[in-house]
Amino acid sequence: MDGSATARLTEVLDGRWARVRRDARQRMAELPSPHTYDLSTEEHRAQVYAELQELAEAGYPRAGFPKSHGGDGDTGATLTSFEMLGFGDLSLMVKAGVQWGLFGGAVAALGTEPHHDRYLRAIMDLDLPGCFAMTETGHGSDVQNLRTTATYDPVTREFVVHTPHEAARKDYIGNAARDGRAAVVFAQLITGGESRGVHALVVPLRDEHGAPLPGVRIADCGRKAGLNGVDNGRLWFDNVRVPREALLNRYGDVAPDGTYTSPVEGDSRRFFTMLGTLIRGRISVAGAAGSATKSALTIAVRYALERRQFPRPGEPEEVVLLDYLAHQRRLLPALATTYALHFAQEQLVTTLHELADEPDDRRQRELESRAAGLKAATTWHATRTIQTCREACGGAGYLAENRLPQLKADTDVFTTFEGDNTVLYQLVAKGLLTGYRQHVHDLGTAGMARFIADQFVGTVIERTAARSLIERLVSAVSPQNDDTDLLDRGWHLRLFEDREKHVLDTLARRLRRAGAPGADAFEVFNNAQDHVLRAARVHVERVVLEAFVAGVDRCADPDAAALLNRVCDLHVLSAVEADLDWFLGHGRLSTTRAKAVTGAVNDLCRGLRPHAGTLVDAFAIPEPLVGAPIATGAERDRQDAQRRHETPPGAGALPRTEDTRANPATAATS
Amino acid sequence: MDGSATARLTEVLDGRWARVRRDARQRMAELPSPHTYDLSTEEHRAQVYAELQELAEAGYPRAGFPKSHGGDGDTGATLTSFEMLGFGDLSLMVKAGVQWGLFGGAVAALGTEPHHDRYLRAIMDLDLPGCFAMTETGHGSDVQNLRTTATYDPVTREFVVHTPHEAARKDYIGNAARDGRAAVVFAQLITGGESRGVHALVVPLRDEHGAPLPGVRIADCGRKAGLNGVDNGRLWFDNVRVPREALLNRYGDVAPDGTYTSPVEGDSRRFFTMLGTLIRGRISVAGAAGSATKSALTIAVRYALERRQFPRPGEPEEVVLLDYLAHQRRLLPALATTYALHFAQEQLVTTLHELADEPDDRRQRELESRAAGLKAATTWHATRTIQTCREACGGAGYLAENRLPQLKADTDVFTTFEGDNTVLYQLVAKGLLTGYRQHVHDLGTAGMARFIADQFVGTVIERTAARSLIERLVSAVSPQNDDTDLLDRGWHLRLFEDREKHVLDTLARRLRRAGAPGADAFEVFNNAQDHVLRAARVHVERVVLEAFVAGVDRCADPDAAALLNRVCDLHVLSAVEADLDWFLGHGRLSTTRAKAVTGAVNDLCRGLRPHAGTLVDAFAIPEPLVGAPIATGAERDRQDAQRRHETPPGAGALPRTEDTRANPATAATS
Repeated sequence: MDGSATARLTEVLDGRWARVRRDARQRMAELPSPHTYDLSTEEHRAQVYAELQELAEAGYPRAGFPKSHGGDGDTGATLTSFEMLGFGDLSLMVKAGVQWGLFGGAVAALGTEPHHDRYLRAIMDLDLPGCFAMTETGHGSDVQNLRTTATYDPVTREFVVHTPHEAARKDYIGNAARDGRAAVVFAQLITGGESRGVHALVVPLRDEHGAPLPGVRIADCGRKAGLNGVDNGRLWFDNVRVPREALLNRYGDVAPDGTYTSPVEGDSRRFFTMLGTLIRGRISVAGAAGSATKSALTIAVRYALERRQFPRPGEPEEVVLLDYLAHQRRLLPALATTYALHFAQEQLVTTLHELADEPDDRRQRELESRAAGLKAATTWHATRTIQTCREACGGAGYLAENRLPQLKADTDVFTTFEGDNTVLYQLVAKGLLTGYRQHVHDLGTAGMARFIADQFVGTVIERTAARSLIERLVSAVSPQNDDTDLLDRGWHLRLFEDREKHVLDTLARRLRRAGAPGADAFEVFNNAQDHVLRAARVHVERVVLEAFVAGVDRCADPDAAALLNRVCDLHVLSAVEADLDWFLGHGRLSTTRAKAVTGAVNDLCRGLRPHAGTLVDAFAIPEPLVGAPIATGAERDRQDAQRRHETPPGAGALPRTEDTRANPATAATS
Repeated sequence: MDGSATARLTEVLDGRWARVRRDARQRMAELPSPHTYDLSTEEHRAQVYAELQELAEAGYPRAGFPKSHGGDGDTGATLTSFEMLGFGDLSLMVKAGVQWGLFGGAVAALGTEPHHDRYLRAIMDLDLPGCFAMTETGHGSDVQNLRTTATYDPVTREFVVHTPHEAARKDYIGNAARDGRAAVVFAQLITGGESRGVHALVVPLRDEHGAPLPGVRIADCGRKAGLNGVDNGRLWFDNVRVPREALLNRYGDVAPDGTYTSPVEGDSRRFFTMLGTLIRGRISVAGAAGSATKSALTIAVRYALERRQFPRPGEPEEVVLLDYLAHQRRLLPALATTYALHFAQEQLVTTLHELADEPDDRRQRELESRAAGLKAATTWHATRTIQTCREACGGAGYLAENRLPQLKADTDVFTTFEGDNTVLYQLVAKGLLTGYRQHVHDLGTAGMARFIADQFVGTVIERTAARSLIERLVSAVSPQNDDTDLLDRGWHLRLFEDREKHVLDTLARRLRRAGAPGADAFEVFNNAQDHVLRAARVHVERVVLEAFVAGVDRCADPDAAALLNRVCDLHVLSAVEADLDWFLGHGRLSTTRAKAVTGAVNDLCRGLRPHAGTLVDAFAIPEPLVGAPIATGAERDRQDAQRRHETPPGAGALPRTEDTRANPATAATS
């Protein structure tokens, strides 16, 4: 591909919301650099708050809010612009996510007209900074069991919000320590002496001077690994009274006399219906994780293209890092998988956008499961890849000015918040077992095992993207044929489908034992936990591959498509290589073919090496945001200086050539 | 094991330098907490410098210096006390390592009597804070090719130290930005117009007021991911003149008239002989990485033993995290490998200590290779394990007060400094090919391939520890027998030996092609780079296993030995599981046996679960240094509060039980 090749690739990546991406690039290119490492916690918080105000003034949050209340109601655009914020200071992305995605999103999705009228405009304009107070110290993953109570008092027609003990304090709440004036508080709703499960209420936190209101106690979570521009805090409520209207009553309401009504039957089902409406947060985190990964790869790949180390006999210059196979293997498969996840994310955002216009219960459930799986896969990929990029840049990668430390520290909690990844994968696995969709949210550990024992009838692999194309590719090959070309896409798809089906079938068989008389259902499930996690992983890998294949298929530019196909080859074969023990252990690959996979990964790395610069440039991150001196010419300048100084070679102060054998034994950074 | 079980295990772990460990524990228990996350860079540097002065006043550095100059000359003790510093603020460990290990160590090892008389006492007492100025921006791994020059001027009998261009500036130099008054500067020595390779000179940097001396330019590297108590800087020399006596002349000297003499022939060989004397730095880093890993595991395991999440049907309390198989699998194999690496480190320190008294060229080479391999293995293990511990503690693990962020950030550069791990593994692989020991430091990329092509005759596995015991265990089993007990230690040892031999044999065969007519030796070597790295890894794994086996064998306490044997089982089988694709792909394990390995890892996790607390407590980290509230009772206190409040169950504000099915789908940390 030629000079414009990068632009053509960018166009493919930009996809449906290209305009949003271009606008964001223009706006962000004018911002100061994303460097915040020299700021104290309070300085950083103040800077992020000021930037948040600028976003509010520029109308940034509009896309995510309904047209009826001054918004644009463009779900895809709002998700895409969150993803773009991921190229800047991630504290700003999270702070915006808390204010508009979580706090504003909860009021919009769980509240009704009066709440919208009262709050949405103030939330968009940042006149009402707020919190999403769900997690408690004692209940982070298992929020259905949180302990804060909201007890209805029919005499005063108020709810009494209360923290019964220390483990029930709200914890890690963004916007709480410094800026939040109100919070959507999740609590067990009690009326008429009966608990009705978790509901959400709008509870004021601070007065107009920023002082906590009576009965509200606020503490600062203090310094964190990263995201220190976000003011996370803890909240305690000591019998705080709020009016009956504070209840966000779309899914459950309390009449003045205390009578409870709900359009959704069952506390558990209702809770998960409520959570389902808040899915955007999880998808936003996946998007931002993708952006941070792209930033890290842009830095590390550019450095690897300029940095030289160790002479090559007969050559005047030392070897460029990316010419070493080991360095290619560190960066290029990770780059390929970043492309794959990009297309999967785009597909997820598109589905969410379409569902906003045409709600469909079945697709909504599927989307929730896919969002959970992709969030886990993308954030783990970010954690691993940014770490690899740091190491691949050596000492330079450890300096704050080169951004990798901040990218690592800021994204590290992405594997935890908006759902712990290990917990999310368990949710995904459950969703894969046939029959589940009729029993939507009825998960649990033992509960799940029992359910499966009763209901399981067989697994069905449902294709998620470009169904007819994938059908055609798959049906053209046999998965077990040793002669099939290693780069045959149909073979890849079939291999992944077949793996998923086998893992699910055997998992279901194991879990069925939980139904046997005398079986300890919890133990059966717990003993299969590694199997459960594997099921989710291989499912997500299949979905991601299908999204990549569909994305390449949509690409009209033949050169771009050819390059993307090679990237897809590397992505899929390095995923196969990473799971080689499974494919070998289950007779899916012969030992000969397994070795050929490793050889093919090496070949693909070499083949993509000349395109590595194009592939990261196509992410089109505005240069001021790339921000790292090692990625923006400093290393090239130094190489040039050395070249100028040392030409002609052998002159002056150069060491004698016959003794300068390269030696990788000797790095000693003091 | 009962109450004293922990103490008995500690005794085994404490080993030969138990006294040093006990003294360090006592001293460190009195220090303030290692929390530094709220300090600015300058505050942190000042605090670390003050602590360094306290160490100097307490005589801490004595162990590492010769008796002739006021030291104790106890190599093992000095290495052990560095390892103990790894439990505190790692900035202090690194700062002490720079001052006494690298700067002082270079003067001691590369200088002669006049240098010792002039500098050693001042270095020990911190009257002369100094730097080890080897790494340059352009040459970090390949320091043999660094570009700074030291040109001898016979007229004035001085060396002219000079930075010829920007890439030749000294970079990442500890102690340079703030405190260093002098530096051991590594430069290409030129005399009589001829370059003699890299030598070291003592060059003053600052006057007594701290101002840079004429011709010396100093810049601050600024904020880093971690270790911000260490003042890393950059140095430029503009024709700085130092007297002839500034040359540390043990391995090469220049007479007043400019005549060069050296007891070691060949610039390359001389350089690596010099480097070999500085091996302590690498071993210290491995030791400190081990300590940081132990701190992280202590925090994460204790939290996992108290933290509960999701109800278990029929039980009044929620499930303890460490009862989940997935959580056991995250923490317990890492804990087992931490034990294994502890014994390997102890063995390395012992060998170094013995060699100080009885130098032996062959053992010295072997030690250098082993130190390189173990440094890489231990620091990668630290990076992975501390990351896992952070994730395993969820949101609490992201808070600075719980120490995991600092442990992660501080240790992150350990994989880079004192030798980039990827480069070190290449050195190790080379050392494994027979015949190498006669060509000590003649590595290089193409050079190596050519050498192997010429010289390779066959691989020999040399056992490193408890030779007769291991011989006995190994000879009792056949590696290919599917009936051998999966926990048979002889089978483990044989499996690892056999794997190493196969990987080396096939590697040598591949590299031999480099000698074929017309072959591009660099390409042959480069294409085999993943194979090279594997060779090093499997070698290190074998050495570590042997050290663990030897360590258990030395253990006189039968209960402690039994527990350690189970830990060893988990260590070795999880290593086998991690490399299952190799064992399957090379016919070393049948698919049935491979599945049994995974089952055995699960069983061992369950079996060690009740001992997890004992195993981390046996590290005997002083409680004030553990430092994390989640590891020192805060979580237990919260669980107690909840229990007190909520007894009897079902009363008051608890949600209705029929609907509280556990659901791992719902964590939403805002």
